[in-house]
Amino acid sequence: MTYTPRIAMIGAGAVGGYYGGRLAQHGHDVHFLLRSEYDAWRTNGVRVKSIDGDFTVAAKGLHVYNDPAAMPKMDLVIVTLKSTENKFLQPLVTPLLHEKTTILALQNGLGNEQAAAQFFGADRIIGGIAFTCINRIEPGVIEHIDYGHIRIGEFARAGKSERLEQIAAIFNASKVRAQAIDDLKLGRWDKQVWNIPFNGLGALLDATTDRLLADESGTNLVLAIMQEVLEAAALDGVQLAPDLPEQKIGMTRTMGAYRTSTQIDRRLRKPMEIESIFGIPVHIARRNGQHLRLLEMLYFALRQVDLVASDKIA
Amino acid sequence: MTYTPRIAMIGAGAVGGYYGGRLAQHGHDVHFLLRSEYDAWRTNGVRVKSIDGDFTVAAKGLHVYNDPAAMPKMDLVIVTLKSTENKFLQPLVTPLLHEKTTILALQNGLGNEQAAAQFFGADRIIGGIAFTCINRIEPGVIEHIDYGHIRIGEFARAGKSERLEQIAAIFNASKVRAQAIDDLKLGRWDKQVWNIPFNGLGALLDATTDRLLADESGTNLVLAIMQEVLEAAALDGVQLAPDLPEQKIGMTRTMGAYRTSTQIDRRLRKPMEIESIFGIPVHIARRNGQHLRLLEMLYFALRQVDLVASDKIA
Repeated sequence: MTYTPRIAMIGAGAVGGYYGGRLAQHGHDVHFLLRSEYDAWRTNGVRVKSIDGDFTVAAKGLHVYNDPAAMPKMDLVIVTLKSTENKFLQPLVTPLLHEKTTILALQNGLGNEQAAAQFFGADRIIGGIAFTCINRIEPGVIEHIDYGHIRIGEFARAGKSERLEQIAAIFNASKVRAQAIDDLKLGRWDKQVWNIPFNGLGALLDATTDRLLADESGTNLVLAIMQEVLEAAALDGVQLAPDLPEQKIGMTRTMGAYRTSTQIDRRLRKPMEIESIFGIPVHIARRNGQHLRLLEMLYFALRQVDLVASDKIA
Repeated sequence: MTYTPRIAMIGAGAVGGYYGGRLAQHGHDVHFLLRSEYDAWRTNGVRVKSIDGDFTVAAKGLHVYNDPAAMPKMDLVIVTLKSTENKFLQPLVTPLLHEKTTILALQNGLGNEQAAAQFFGADRIIGGIAFTCINRIEPGVIEHIDYGHIRIGEFARAGKSERLEQIAAIFNASKVRAQAIDDLKLGRWDKQVWNIPFNGLGALLDATTDRLLADESGTNLVLAIMQEVLEAAALDGVQLAPDLPEQKIGMTRTMGAYRTSTQIDRRLRKPMEIESIFGIPVHIARRNGQHLRLLEMLYFALRQVDLVASDKIA
């Protein structure tokens, strides 16, 4: 193996635990920064039930920490924090950086690379888009239910860099399909076309994807929301294919009763990724003098749900 | 008193109990058709706590029934069924009609007069719009919290008829402010401009009116929805004043933390009046080849909520 980086997983929830676990399982030097999971992992390791094969990383083979100051310098820092936790980026990541450390924001929605770039400089940053369904079952136990591939792209420049190819290669050698992409921004917006209607309506209505597409009125609503995402993307300088909404809906019909991460967050009363998925597109449109009505409504509605759920209001 | 009709209250829930109770309190010959409230009223009468003065109608002074076949013929039938119960109109009202019986649909939303007209002929029908907040507290106990005035208009013709003036007069003599209006359809749409955003978002988000107007994004959303209601009204041949949305919002700001009937229905897991308030405007627009996106989204969302609430789906 030519590229043998020392890797940190920051925010090893379900996503970080799964992808970091795969890398550790395949012999990589992975260091996990944990919070609520720390005791469970240190004692029992991590156990993953996966459609791509179950595995366990025993406690004695794991590098786990609950304090970034105790960690060595890293070659690659993979951030899997929820975007709502980006306010902790600076204290969590700064202690891990040497001059050439690369930071991979393997997170949902928009603005994550920008958040990292403002603290650590744009050149270090690459972005990752995960297409997967992974849940934490209990401390130290993760369930990988479906999909799993990731796309990674450079943040500050177009095209496939050597480090992208190297990182994709170590994932591909670790049972995770990974692809270096030329245009991260395009990839992020492409994902948004799916996430905004399905995560948004799914969370608002506690509805799985199949229910949202069960009749013509739901399908038309999803299409109309996707159309607004295309408009937001265009205002952000990204031209998506006009038939992308139809494609995404066709693909979604093959997924059965899929529950999005935002729907699950709402059910569990955990913070929803409202700003990164819904807020940023609305703000981009507003800055351009546009009101994308359905996105505005979804954004407003989810913030209201969040206010109620978090007991910020009676 | 020149006009002394025999009056039936059909569907004497909170609204029917209050308005019928006011008429009975003031000496009118009122006959209540009850279902779940029958035993309570027959035993204990009805007690009303009202901002316009508490009152009780004792059991011995009340005409209560649980079967329309047991009731005499009526001069005026006031229907206060929820619009979701209009499927029971024909069996409930038919036994009460003589040749000149007038039917007053004192109900929410659109389509109630049409539902009555299809069974009983358009000429009998007048419509009533209640601006009020009335809740049932327990069987036989009603709380009238705010407002209370009603507007009544002819269904099949424009202008103020003699019977409208007579009915308004008996309400006005019974502590209920009532006004005959020239244009019922205009009155119905005017109310819709308020009901659709506040009942819709209120139910969807479990939000009182003040929360929906708490910041600019909420206010803009309410305005955008109201704008679509104006478009739907125009497609239905009703021109509403362009500044009506601003007026309604200004008025709403004086109401404090108001909880709409649809929000209350959702909380209590009772049927929401989705078709009459939200569905009919969407259908009118669609028949005219228009998609009013926010109304479509509200309508879809509330039907989903209803499906979940009624356990029609798992």
